[in-house]
Formats: sequence, structure tokens, C-alpha cells
Amino acid sequence: MTDEVGTVRFDVGRYGRIGLAEAVLAEGKTPEQIVEAMDQAHDAVGQVLVTRLTAARFEALPEAHRSWLDYDPVSRTAMTARIPLPRTPGAVAILTGGTSDIGVAREAARTLRFHGIVSQEIADVGVAGLWRIMEHRDLLKAMPVVIVCAGMEGALFSVVGGLSGGVVIAVPTSNGYGVGAGGMVALNAALASCAPGLAVTNVDNGYGAACIALRTLAARDKESPV
Amino acid sequence: MTDEVGTVRFDVGRYGRIGLAEAVLAEGKTPEQIVEAMDQAHDAVGQVLVTRLTAARFEALPEAHRSWLDYDPVSRTAMTARIPLPRTPGAVAILTGGTSDIGVAREAARTLRFHGIVSQEIADVGVAGLWRIMEHRDLLKAMPVVIVCAGMEGALFSVVGGLSGGVVIAVPTSNGYGVGAGGMVALNAALASCAPGLAVTNVDNGYGAACIALRTLAARDKESPV
Amino acid sequence: MTDEVGTVRFDVGRYGRIGLAEAVLAEGKTPEQIVEAMDQAHDAVGQVLVTRLTAARFEALPEAHRSWLDYDPVSRTAMTARIPLPRTPGAVAILTGGTSDIGVAREAARTLRFHGIVSQEIADVGVAGLWRIMEHRDLLKAMPVVIVCAGMEGALFSVVGGLSGGVVIAVPTSNGYGVGAGGMVALNAALASCAPGLAVTNVDNGYGAACIALRTLAARDKESPV
Amino acid sequence: MTDEVGTVRFDVGRYGRIGLAEAVLAEGKTPEQIVEAMDQAHDAVGQVLVTRLTAARFEALPEAHRSWLDYDPVSRTAMTARIPLPRTPGAVAILTGGTSDIGVAREAARTLRFHGIVSQEIADVGVAGLWRIMEHRDLLKAMPVVIVCAGMEGALFSVVGGLSGGVVIAVPTSNGYGVGAGGMVALNAALASCAPGLAVTNVDNGYGAACIALRTLAARDKESPV
Amino acid sequence: MTDEVGTVRFDVGRYGRIGLAEAVLAEGKTPEQIVEAMDQAHDAVGQVLVTRLTAARFEALPEAHRSWLDYDPVSRTAMTARIPLPRTPGAVAILTGGTSDIGVAREAARTLRFHGIVSQEIADVGVAGLWRIMEHRDLLKAMPVVIVCAGMEGALFSVVGGLSGGVVIAVPTSNGYGVGAGGMVALNAALASCAPGLAVTNVDNGYGAACIALRTLAARDKESPV
Amino acid sequence: MTDEVGTVRFDVGRYGRIGLAEAVLAEGKTPEQIVEAMDQAHDAVGQVLVTRLTAARFEALPEAHRSWLDYDPVSRTAMTARIPLPRTPGAVAILTGGTSDIGVAREAARTLRFHGIVSQEIADVGVAGLWRIMEHRDLLKAMPVVIVCAGMEGALFSVVGGLSGGVVIAVPTSNGYGVGAGGMVALNAALASCAPGLAVTNVDNGYGAACIALRTLAARDKESPV
Amino acid sequence: MTDEVGTVRFDVGRYGRIGLAEAVLAEGKTPEQIVEAMDQAHDAVGQVLVTRLTAARFEALPEAHRSWLDYDPVSRTAMTARIPLPRTPGAVAILTGGTSDIGVAREAARTLRFHGIVSQEIADVGVAGLWRIMEHRDLLKAMPVVIVCAGMEGALFSVVGGLSGGVVIAVPTSNGYGVGAGGMVALNAALASCAPGLAVTNVDNGYGAACIALRTLAARDKESPV
Amino acid sequence: MTDEVGTVRFDVGRYGRIGLAEAVLAEGKTPEQIVEAMDQAHDAVGQVLVTRLTAARFEALPEAHRSWLDYDPVSRTAMTARIPLPRTPGAVAILTGGTSDIGVAREAARTLRFHGIVSQEIADVGVAGLWRIMEHRDLLKAMPVVIVCAGMEGALFSVVGGLSGGVVIAVPTSNGYGVGAGGMVALNAALASCAPGLAVTNVDNGYGAACIALRTLAARDKESPV
Repeated sequence: MTDEVGTVRFDVGRYGRIGLAEAVLAEGKTPEQIVEAMDQAHDAVGQVLVTRLTAARFEALPEAHRSWLDYDPVSRTAMTARIPLPRTPGAVAILTGGTSDIGVAREAARTLRFHGIVSQEIADVGVAGLWRIMEHRDLLKAMPVVIVCAGMEGALFSVVGGLSGGVVIAVPTSNGYGVGAGGMVALNAALASCAPGLAVTNVDNGYGAACIALRTLAARDKESPV
Repeated sequence: MTDEVGTVRFDVGRYGRIGLAEAVLAEGKTPEQIVEAMDQAHDAVGQVLVTRLTAARFEALPEAHRSWLDYDPVSRTAMTARIPLPRTPGAVAILTGGTSDIGVAREAARTLRFHGIVSQEIADVGVAGLWRIMEHRDLLKAMPVVIVCAGMEGALFSVVGGLSGGVVIAVPTSNGYGVGAGGMVALNAALASCAPGLAVTNVDNGYGAACIALRTLAARDKESPV
Repeated sequence: MTDEVGTVRFDVGRYGRIGLAEAVLAEGKTPEQIVEAMDQAHDAVGQVLVTRLTAARFEALPEAHRSWLDYDPVSRTAMTARIPLPRTPGAVAILTGGTSDIGVAREAARTLRFHGIVSQEIADVGVAGLWRIMEHRDLLKAMPVVIVCAGMEGALFSVVGGLSGGVVIAVPTSNGYGVGAGGMVALNAALASCAPGLAVTNVDNGYGAACIALRTLAARDKESPV
Repeated sequence: MTDEVGTVRFDVGRYGRIGLAEAVLAEGKTPEQIVEAMDQAHDAVGQVLVTRLTAARFEALPEAHRSWLDYDPVSRTAMTARIPLPRTPGAVAILTGGTSDIGVAREAARTLRFHGIVSQEIADVGVAGLWRIMEHRDLLKAMPVVIVCAGMEGALFSVVGGLSGGVVIAVPTSNGYGVGAGGMVALNAALASCAPGLAVTNVDNGYGAACIALRTLAARDKESPV
Repeated sequence: MTDEVGTVRFDVGRYGRIGLAEAVLAEGKTPEQIVEAMDQAHDAVGQVLVTRLTAARFEALPEAHRSWLDYDPVSRTAMTARIPLPRTPGAVAILTGGTSDIGVAREAARTLRFHGIVSQEIADVGVAGLWRIMEHRDLLKAMPVVIVCAGMEGALFSVVGGLSGGVVIAVPTSNGYGVGAGGMVALNAALASCAPGLAVTNVDNGYGAACIALRTLAARDKESPV
Repeated sequence: MTDEVGTVRFDVGRYGRIGLAEAVLAEGKTPEQIVEAMDQAHDAVGQVLVTRLTAARFEALPEAHRSWLDYDPVSRTAMTARIPLPRTPGAVAILTGGTSDIGVAREAARTLRFHGIVSQEIADVGVAGLWRIMEHRDLLKAMPVVIVCAGMEGALFSVVGGLSGGVVIAVPTSNGYGVGAGGMVALNAALASCAPGLAVTNVDNGYGAACIALRTLAARDKESPV
Repeated sequence: MTDEVGTVRFDVGRYGRIGLAEAVLAEGKTPEQIVEAMDQAHDAVGQVLVTRLTAARFEALPEAHRSWLDYDPVSRTAMTARIPLPRTPGAVAILTGGTSDIGVAREAARTLRFHGIVSQEIADVGVAGLWRIMEHRDLLKAMPVVIVCAGMEGALFSVVGGLSGGVVIAVPTSNGYGVGAGGMVALNAALASCAPGLAVTNVDNGYGAACIALRTLAARDKESPV
Repeated sequence: MTDEVGTVRFDVGRYGRIGLAEAVLAEGKTPEQIVEAMDQAHDAVGQVLVTRLTAARFEALPEAHRSWLDYDPVSRTAMTARIPLPRTPGAVAILTGGTSDIGVAREAARTLRFHGIVSQEIADVGVAGLWRIMEHRDLLKAMPVVIVCAGMEGALFSVVGGLSGGVVIAVPTSNGYGVGAGGMVALNAALASCAPGLAVTNVDNGYGAACIALRTLAARDKESPV
């Protein structure tokens, strides 16, 4: 019988079970809890991915930990610097509607790279200037997986969903104001889209979008068990 | 001093004041109140427009009234049959994203016709098949006023807003289900659009959209008073 | 120049463009519009899928059309009876949390069958009796695509997301009452899930879930264009 | 194939396409991204408008850029100082319900001036003191375009909509507290107004209101293409 | 100890305690429960007021009860026919914005009459035609209590609040559609009004508005106890 | 491999696992599914409880099933008529704020009786007539478990929570209109209560409240395992 | 024609029109605008009331203005120090549910004092300890006007509404967390209350509550005009 | 008659009345008010529990008070150091879904300890790694009371509810982002759970959860009064 509310217990076996590494979600954790989780992951599998880690909180980590981490302030992610070789080059495209969506897009790109996938980014293709997305029509048609990051009204999701036959992952971002604040309009637009079969994630969830992409690529190697 | 809550008092002078006829909004009124409002309008200005009048409620009107009304069940509007000659032919285009948006579009078209304007309709140009709207690119560029009726995620508003330099009026429709039910997603998408300067109306408000169009056409004839 | 708000314009080329057939969404359409859309699809590609078609509305279709349609009242779908041979047998599992989720699950199953895919259904595996889902652990681990249909609090999404490494598609259903009415709790639970990389659809969108599955299977055959 | 999520891509051709210059929305962008967008606009069309730029962020811009920008802290806008001559003097009136709405009104006024339009402002005409708006009755009747900025309960929109026959643009502001916080009450009041044909924008969207005004003035010069 | 969930227990002493009679809220009760509550009230104080009683439910009451009830279908209220003499003639004015608000206004008027107060009704004075309310300016200034019933955007509340120095009671009605459906916009407009000191009730609560009026009239006779 | 979305799979072992029988939630199920679930429960454990079964749906059940069911239309519950002897007489009190809350209260009472517990009901003790609840002060203080069913503003929850030291279970009911419609105000009032330690359930969840009561009574017999 | 968005225009005649002085709402105004509004009020009527003025903002006012202002940080109000003699002593009681509600209560008390009314405060009478409010039962019964300030679940409104026959003004406060954050639960509880005839204000609107009280006291002196 | 809004009035008799000590909720109180409430509690019953007291606010308390307080920054609680001996050892288990939920769990644990109960904590048993909760299956089955603290989608509540037959208390935490921000998804998931009989509290209400546990333990000693 104890009187203390416990310690961190990182799910180090997740990669082995389902092929996706658990990331350390820094938001809502104390610095001590972040370090403890990183250590557990590092000790068990030799690799760590940290998400939603602000620059200020990264600076507050022990020097020893910072030394072996590759930190990117735009996506607020840190990860172990040793990256395995690309497993499936170029299978994933990542689009952004506007400049403000780049942070979320980069969270997706870095999560993919952490799992060995190099992605291709196409920035600033919002539909108010439709010619920008139309330039990439052939690429969208051929690509197995397309991640679309967009805020405001999220019209880009539907347009891409009508141009691509691959898995289209809609990541609403929290960019916007008034009714658009917090990303709820973009999220609902993705869910209510007239384009068939969009795979939608939570607002700003670049990590989750990358995981859907990884699951899709993993599905290539799975044989039906029945 | 009275003990009775009053009678209908139709704003018969509105057309004279601001150039827009008050319509009889049938929803929420008893049959007696609808007839009373129609009579007041008819007596004062010789013309009546009734909106949100279901077929069942139209049938319940006195035969005498039905005889001089032109009723359309799709838009649920009734109006006096004598229509003045077109004042500004072809100045307004009305687009619909899907088949279910036609009722709202027709409410706008008939309100315009009631005020003497013949409009041009372009149906079923939802963005999931982008080629459909692209066929009308030149028209959209040249048109003074474009009314766009769309439900679900309302992506059509942004695409048209980026193609047209005229007044673009976004009318969200209540078509959709799940998060899209009631038209709130389409409404918010119109308000949060990345396309600059969309004029947004309430959900299903085809009448209001026509009034914005009429105000725009009226603005052509107004000289700055200062 | 016309005065009529247009006619149905079915996107008959969608299958050719992105490999997904446009379905006729019956909800919100008049019987005439449904028939017109079915005819356009039938004439162009020889196959039709109709969704959200209540039994009463199916009965109201012309006898000629009903004769060549396979109608299922539980999923409220109708489709042409001639089904192509299975393309990828057994690649998709469809789970339901409770008995009330079966209608949505069957909409997914029939959309898949319409595209040539035979799926495997596993019913009534809600987490309040955890042993039910645990029995299918090995299958979940091996399956390329798993569709999960659940209402109420949607806890099943997270549990399956932690057991399967394939693409996990979360379809919230509108079953529930109080705060759970309309499916919003299940939807938000899917979006906020602690399981990594759930692909979420709109509430009750079995058709959309099937389309994500089809996109995933199509991604197997796509080579990166770069 | 690249590993970097892209660079800013400003829609420099928008003015040419639809007569409205894209503005740099500073909110949600890093200082580097703001400068990059300003440079692209400046290089391509020789003019820049920046919105939602706080005083602190303006001060953080490079001295070189600040030197050629006209910055206004109340509206949080910056623009190139060389302003073209007025194109349509006095065609637009801008009303505010209360003192707190002035920032949004000035964003509209400065966006108009950036496009060559000088507007007329009428401040503090909230309906709780009805005599204030009644003094401007004749002006409202004659004006082609009236922009109304109001927060709290937004009753001013309906009153102006009943007095003016020109295009009335309702801009809800986020001023208020309790149920009025964030501007949603004013927004919904504008959308649900009993005055016919209000053109509504997102909360605090003075830029968008100016764009509707510009579209209206542009519509004067458009001939129907059909 | 019992096994039955109880019987109706009407608060027959309320009039004695606070000067307001408890009304029988018919909505949500079975016919038996309505009759039981009416009987308890009748036996104890000899008078009954029933609210939210649809015509169909009134018809379903026992003939014996219907014979001594004065039923009004517009307000959906029934009350004992013997009405005491007016206690404070003309102290309360009841305004309606539109024809659809009359049902709620009449619920207030009849609740007042049940307590012996005859009120004065002024119908259809919505602000889109401002001249209608301006005609009653002097009356509003002089009146001790003004009840305002309005739906849609509820702008009438603020205008009356600025014209009257008496107690202004805002009763939002559920008339409206789109964002205005259910009366929430009118309710929030009343709460966020720029007019000082509006007394707001729940949506459609004509009974509650009358009770505030009765409390105000009662306050005339109360001396401060301290 | 199957092509059919499965059959009902009732959790017949739940009583054995956690001491609570799974109930058949009739809402959202077809008549066939209800019968199938009832049969599985009956065959396995010899007892059945059905909730949210309207009178119309009960009448539609096979005569054979209806013959051995005890149906109560107020609570919309059916259960096997053979009731075991009371296990813990009088340990649970059930309070209702108003007459309309009785249906939910009785769902709780009958769920308890199905598990062998006889409860005590106290009806119509809403706080607007505070003397009604004060009469039961001593009982509330002594009772181990008190279930409170209240709609509208749910003030009764806080008052009882301050008078009783036993487990107080707050069941919001969906009775109310305007902001109170659907029971959300009562629910939130229970959650935000200033009374310490209210156990809150979903709206109208009399069954769930009974289950909390049963868990509380079961806790009496549990010894700490550590 | 001007290019400047205007200056402050204080409604200095409001007291003369309706007996209520306009207050300067400091929130959302710049320091210059606050000073300008204060000067206009001071010049015209010799008295000023400022609300929602934080201590930091008060300190930032010019020394000259601060010297003649009576500032209270708890209610965040400032007013001219010369207070007229009490007009109606003791006619208003102000209750608070908890300590955190005192700021709002004091805003009401000081607004009353500004208009010459001295009120009586009764603190910390939340219903979780019902004995506290019961001690004041006779006072509540006799008082013409009772203002109740409460946050969280707002149960106090209903209890007082059942004990007092005077005008009961419910002021929800924003104290609370979780579902209670922002005061919406208390607001809705006031609106949905089972106590008849509560006069409800916006969240934290102590000023508005005082204005309802002042209107009630003014109604004493009004004779019905008809 | 007074002119001052009152002083703190702590409910010092609550423990005597219902066995639960009132805690000082620091949030929303000034430092002076916190000290005053602590003093009243200390003087009357010799013990104090303060909740929602940030480290910064604790540091601002007088040294004299801090000296006899045991402060814990993770749960933001302070309490008198003299703790009575454990009354019911080990009767309560406290589970957390993730590391971020520990603060809320510890608020529950310390509230229990303040009342003499030592609890057992089990950390980081989120359902995405189901093996973690399954390890504690036997414990959950035997435990009289289980408190579950979880944020995000709150799936843990349903899983525990299906494994334990004791009282299961669901405490949603505000950890999460996007749709999960503020804890509303976890709260609604708890309320809509398919597991029977969850006792739900407000978001982050560890104190309330402990009070439900205390009420449950108290119910052991209560005999039915009837």
C-alpha cells in the first residue's frame, strides 16, 4: 500500500506491438516527468520523439539530454538525432493551405522521418488562389498518401479529396479567428466534406496524421489473415 | 386600454423606404395571420411575396387567395403572378453545390424575379469534381453578383470567392448530417473563408441573399451624398 | 439565359478519376431527383449505389428501378445487383460496439462490396465486456484495415487503436441519449483518442469509412511518383 | 524530393485576377514569415497591406521595412505609405456602435484607402441612445455602401438595415463579456436580423468588410456577360 | 416504506407566501397528472392557471374540467373563468416584434389577468421599420412596466431599453431559423444588450415575464424592513 | 469469412463479473434485435430488464414474450415478473423535483427492484417551495443512498447534497424548455454544484443511478484487498 | 468628408431620458478613450461612474482625474466622490453565494450608491449550508428588491426566488471551473429556474442588476399613462 | 443597515452535519479572503484544507500560516500537517490514465488523507496499452471504491467500469488539445459510458471525487432509517 501518486510508465513496447512509437507529449507534464519519460524510452528502445515541446521548455531540459536531441522550434518537436535510413522514399506528400500551417505540417514530417520516411512538402496552396493546387494535380493523383494541413475554413481538404485517389489525411489547424478560432471550423469542414473518404484527425495533430500514414504504408505488407 | 394582443401590422412602406418589399414569412404564423398579412400587402402595394410556405399550408389558404398566387413547392414560395419586366437582365448568377441546395437557390431566384430581376442558375458544381466549376470561370469573372448556395462543408464559397471579382454572396444550406446537420459547418466555413470579402447570410436564407443582390444593383444608381 | 434552377448533374467520372464511385445521397433529395441521379449514373457507368434511402422512399421509387436494385433496410442502401468479383478478399474487418451500430457497419460493408471488396464483420464487442474484443486480438493485429463503428462514449476506438497496427477507421454512430445524443461524444472521443493515428469520419458515415478503406487498398498499388 | 516544409508563397496575382490585393495576415506567422510575405508582395506589385499586426510585432520588424510602412496601432494595420488618389470619394460610410469598435472600423477604413477609397466614419451611434443614429438618416438612405461595426448584442445592424437601401455590411466585433464575449452574439444577431439583406462577415473582420465594399463598387463597372 | 414513485404535490401555498400562484406546467406531464394538479390547486385556492397546454391536450381533459376553464389556443393557456377585478389597470405594456411572438405575449397577458392585472398590447413593432416603435415613445417613457416579446435577433429589446425608464422585461421567443432557431440569439442579445438594466427571462417564458411584472407592482407596496 | 454484419451478443456474464445485470436498451434497436437480446439474457440467467421501451414498442413484442414481462409505461421499462426478495430494505431514497421527473425516478426504482432492492420515493420536493424538502431532513441525514431526479435548473441537487452525508446521486432529467431543454442545465448544475461529492449521471439515466446505488451497497461487503 | 474613425460620443442625456446614468465601460477602451468619455460625462452632468476598470488601468489615469475619483479595486469601479444623499434607504438587499462573488455584488452596490441608494449586503449564504439563507427569511419576504450574486451552479437563485415576493434579480458570476467556467451554468440555472419570475442579467453584470433595481424603484412613482 | 459587501463566512459546521469538511477553494479569492477563511476553519475545527492554491499564491500567504501548512504543488493543495490516523486503510484505489492526470489524482488522495483515509495509487494505465490496466484486474474486482482520473477521450472510465463491481468514480481531467481541450470530451465520455453506474464529477474535481468516496465509506455505517 502506498500513499504516493505514481511515477511515469512509458509504453515502450508500443512499436513492437503495432509499429508506432509512443511519443512523449510534453504539454501538461512537468520537466521532471518529461525527462523521466524520455529516459524510459531511450533505455528501452534507444530512440525518443517529443511533441508539443516549446522552445522555453526545451531550454529547461538538462544539458545532457539536449545534447543528443534534434530540436525544431517551428514544429515544437525534439527527437534523437540518429535517424534510420529512409524505408519508403517519397510515398507521402504534405500540403499546407497557408504559412501558418507549417508548424503542424512539420510535426507530421518529423514524425515520419523519426519512423524512417522522407516526405515531400508543398506549401501555401490555399484554394483562394486555385491555380496553386492545380499545378500539383498529377502528383496528387499518383501519390499513395497525402497529408493536408489547413486552418480557417478548410476548403483545401475537399479540393484535394476530389483530385487524389490515395489516402487523404485532413489535419485541421488552429489558425483562424472569430468563428475560425481554435480550428473547429476546419475540423468540421473536413468531417462534413463532400469529397469521399477523408481520414480526419484532431486539430493540430500532425503526429496523428503521420501515424495514419505509417499505418497505411504498413498495410501494404499485411496479408489478410482469413 | 385593450386586453387583446394585437393584429398583424405589415410594413407596407418598406419598398418605398429602402427598395425591398417585406415578405410574409409563413413559418410560425397561423393561417389567419398569413392571410391577414397578404391582404395588407396586397391592398397597399398590389404585390405579395410569401416565403417558407409548405405545400400543405399553401393548400390550406382560401381558394380566392390561391387563385392569384404563383406557388412553387421546391422553394416553398408564393407570389403574385403579375411580374414586372426585367430591370437588369442577367446581372446575377446563382450557383448550387449539390441537388439538395436547389430549394434555397430557387427562393433567391424567385425573390429576384419578384423584384424584376431575371437570374442565371448553374447547378451541381460542388468542388469534389472541380472541373464542373472551372467550366464557368469566365462567367464568374465577369458577373457583377454571384450567389452561392452550398451545404455540408461549404468549400464552394472559397473557390468561387477566389475566381470572381463581383459581389459573392454565400448562402449556407442546412443539407448535411452529423457535424454538418443544420448548416452550421457551411455557415462557419463561409465566415472563416480565406477568400476575401464574402457576403454571408443566415442558413437557408435565399430571400436574404436576393436582397443583398438587389442592394448591390441599387448601389449602382446611388451617388455619394457627400 | 435561363430562369430555372438547374437539373441534377451526377459526377459520373469520379470512379475514373480517383477510383471511388459517387453515391446518390438520397437524404434531402426529392424522388424525382433521386431517379434522375440514378439514371445518369446507370447510363454512364452501369452501376449505382444509393445511400440514406429509407424503406418508405425506396418503396416510392418507380417499379422499373426497384426491380434492378438490391435494397437493404438496415443500412438504408440500394445498389445494382450485379456485383463484380471480389478484388481483395478479407482485407477489411468491420467491428461494432453494440447492436445499434449495425446499420452504419452494413453501409460500410455494402459500399465495399459495391467496389468488389468482401469484408469481415465482428459484432457487439463493446469495452464494458472487455473479453469480447480480446478474443479477436490476433485478427486485429494481422488485418490491414479495421473499421470500428461505435456510439455512446466511443471507448472501443482507443482500445482497437492500441491493438491493431493496420489502418484503424473510427466511425462514430449517433446512438446514445443525453450528452451522447447525435454521436458527438463518440466523434470527439475518436478525435481525442490516446491511441495513435485513428482515421476519423463524420458521424454515421459508413460510406466514408469504406472509401478510406478503398483508398488504403489502392495505395498498395501506387508507386511514389518522385 | 525535399525534406523541408516550404517557404511562403504569396498570392501576388490576386489583385489582377479579382481586383482585391491579398493582405499579409500577421497573426499566426513568425516575424521571418511576415517579412518574407511583405517582400514578395512588394517585389511583385509594389504595395503591401499587413493586418492583425500588434504594436510589439511591428516594432520587431527590421528597421528597413518599418521605414516605408505606415503603421496604425488602433487597427493593428501597416501599409505602404504611397497611397493612390481616391477612386470613388465618399461612397462608403463606416459606423461604430461604441468606442471599442473603432479598431475594427479603422481596419476597414485603411483597407479601403489602400485600394484608393476614402470613407466617411460616424462613431458611437449605438441604439441605446437612438437619437444618435437618427441624426444620420438621410445620409444612410443615400449612401451606396454602409459598413456597420458593432459588438455586444449587435442591434445596430438591424436598425441600419431598415434605414438604408444600399449594401449594408455587418461586422460583428469581439467587444463584450459574459454571453457577449468573443462577438458571437453580435455575429448571430447580424445573421438572424429581421432587416432584409445584411451582408455579414466574420467577427472583427474589418478587412473582409472593406473587400465586400470594393466588390460592390467594382460591380458598378461590370456588365452582365450574358 | 413504499415502492411507488409518488403523487403530485402542488405548491398551493405559494400565492400566500410570495404573492404568485403556482401554474400547472402541462408540458411533460401525463393527462392524469395535469388533472390531479388542477384539482389540488382548485380545492386549495379556488383558482387554476395551466400553461403550455396544447389544444389537443386540452381536448383530452375530462369534460367536467373543460367546462369551467377558459382556454386560449394561441397562448396555450387555460384558466378558471372567474377573473377578479383589475387591481392596477394599465400598469403593464406588452410589445411584440412580429406576428409570431403573439403566443408568448398572450401567455404573459393572461397570467397577468389571472392575477387581476389588465395589460396593454402593442403588436408588430420590430425595428426593421423603426417608425412603428417610435409612435409609442411617450407611452414607453411613462409606463411602469414594459414586457417586450421578440425573436430572431432581438434588437427590439435594446431599442425599448433606451426609450423607457420603467422596468423593461425581455422575453426572447423561439421564432427564427438557422442560427436563430430556438431563440438563443434573441436570448443572448437581451443579456448582452447595451441598454442598461434589462430583466431577462428564459425563451418563450411569458409566464415568468408576467411574474416579474407582478413582483414589480408588489414592490410598490413594500416598505424597507430595515 | 462472412459478408453479414453480425448478430446480437448479450453480455450475459456481467452480473457474475461485477454484480450488475446488463439491461436491454431498447432505443435504437429493431424489434427483432430486442427479442434476440431478451432471449439470450433469459436463457443464460433467467432474468431480463429492458429499458427505454415505449408502450408502442412493447405492444409490438410477441405475445409470448409480453406474457412473462412486467411492463411499466411511465418508466418505459419491462422486466421479468419474478422478483427476488428484498436484499437491503429501505437503503435507498429516490427524490423528484417535479411531477415530470417521475418517469426517470421509476426507472431507477424498478432497476433496483430487479436487483432485489426496495426503495423509498419522495415526490415533488422542488426548492421553489423549500418547506417540502425540509420536512424530510432527518430521513436524508440518515439514509445511506439518496437518488435525486430533477430537471430545469437542478437546484435540488445542491440542497440535498448539503443535507445528506450518504451517497447522493444526481440524475438530471430532460424536462424543461428554452435553455433548459434536453436537461443540459440540470446536468451542468449537478457537476458544478457547491455541495461536495455529488455522483452525477447522464441525463435521464435512472438505470445508471440505480447501478451506482447497487455499487455502493456492494461496497459494504467488500474488504480492502491490500 | 473625413478619413478618421471618430471620437468618443458619450450619451450624456441618458439620465435625463430614462433616469439611469450611462457608465464608462473601461474594458476594451484605450486610456485616452476612457479619459475622453469621463470628461464628457463630467462636463455635462458633473458625475461619472466607470466600470470594469482594473487597478492597473486606474493607476494609469492622469493624476488630475484620479484625485477626484473614488476607486474600489474589488468591484473595479471608480466614481465621483460627491455622492448625493440616499433617496430610498434600505430598499435593496444584495446577497452573495460565496466569497468570490463579492466583486460583482459590490459593483451593484456602488452603482446604486452612485444613484443615491444605500443597499444592504448579506454575504456567503450558499445553499450547501442552507441554514445561512434561512436566517434571513423574514428580511427576504419584506424586501422590495433582492439582488442575488452567485456562480457555480446558481442554486441560490431558485431558493431566494421561492422565499421573496419582491423583485429578485439574478446575477450569475463567472466563478467556477470545468463546466462552471465563465458563469454559463449559473446563468442558465437562473433562466431555467423553477422559481417564478426571476429577472436575469448577463454574467458578472452587477451594474445591470443595479439598473433593474433602479427601474423598479422608479416604477413606484410612475402612474399608468392610459 | 450597512453599506459594505460582507466578510467571509466559512461553513465550519459542515463536517458535523454531513461528515465532509468544507475546503477553502483558493481560486477566485483574494489573499486576504483565503487567510480569513483559513482562520475561521482553524479556529472552529482545528483543521484546514485549501484547494486550487498555486505555488505563487501559497508563497504569498503570511509566513505564520505557511509554517503550519503542508503544501503540495502538484495537486495545488495545502492542509494542516497534523493528520489523524487512517480510518479505513486501503479502501480506495486511484488510477490515472496518463502522467498529466497526476495533479488531479493527488488532490483526491490528499483530500482523503485529510479525512483519515490512505489510498492506493496506480499510475499510467491508459487503454492504448491495454496490458497495463489488465495487470490490476483482481485488485479492481475486489476494491470497494475506485477513482479514475483521465483526460483526452476518457476511454479508461468505461474499461474500469466493466472490470470493477465497486463504486467507480470518473474524474475527467482537462488534459488534451483540439476537441479535447478543457476536458469536455472526457467528461462526456464518462457520462455517456456503456459501463453501468459510473459516478461522474466535474472536470479536474479531485476533491469532489474524494468526497464521493468518503460518502461511500460513510454509507457502510448507516442503517436504513425506515
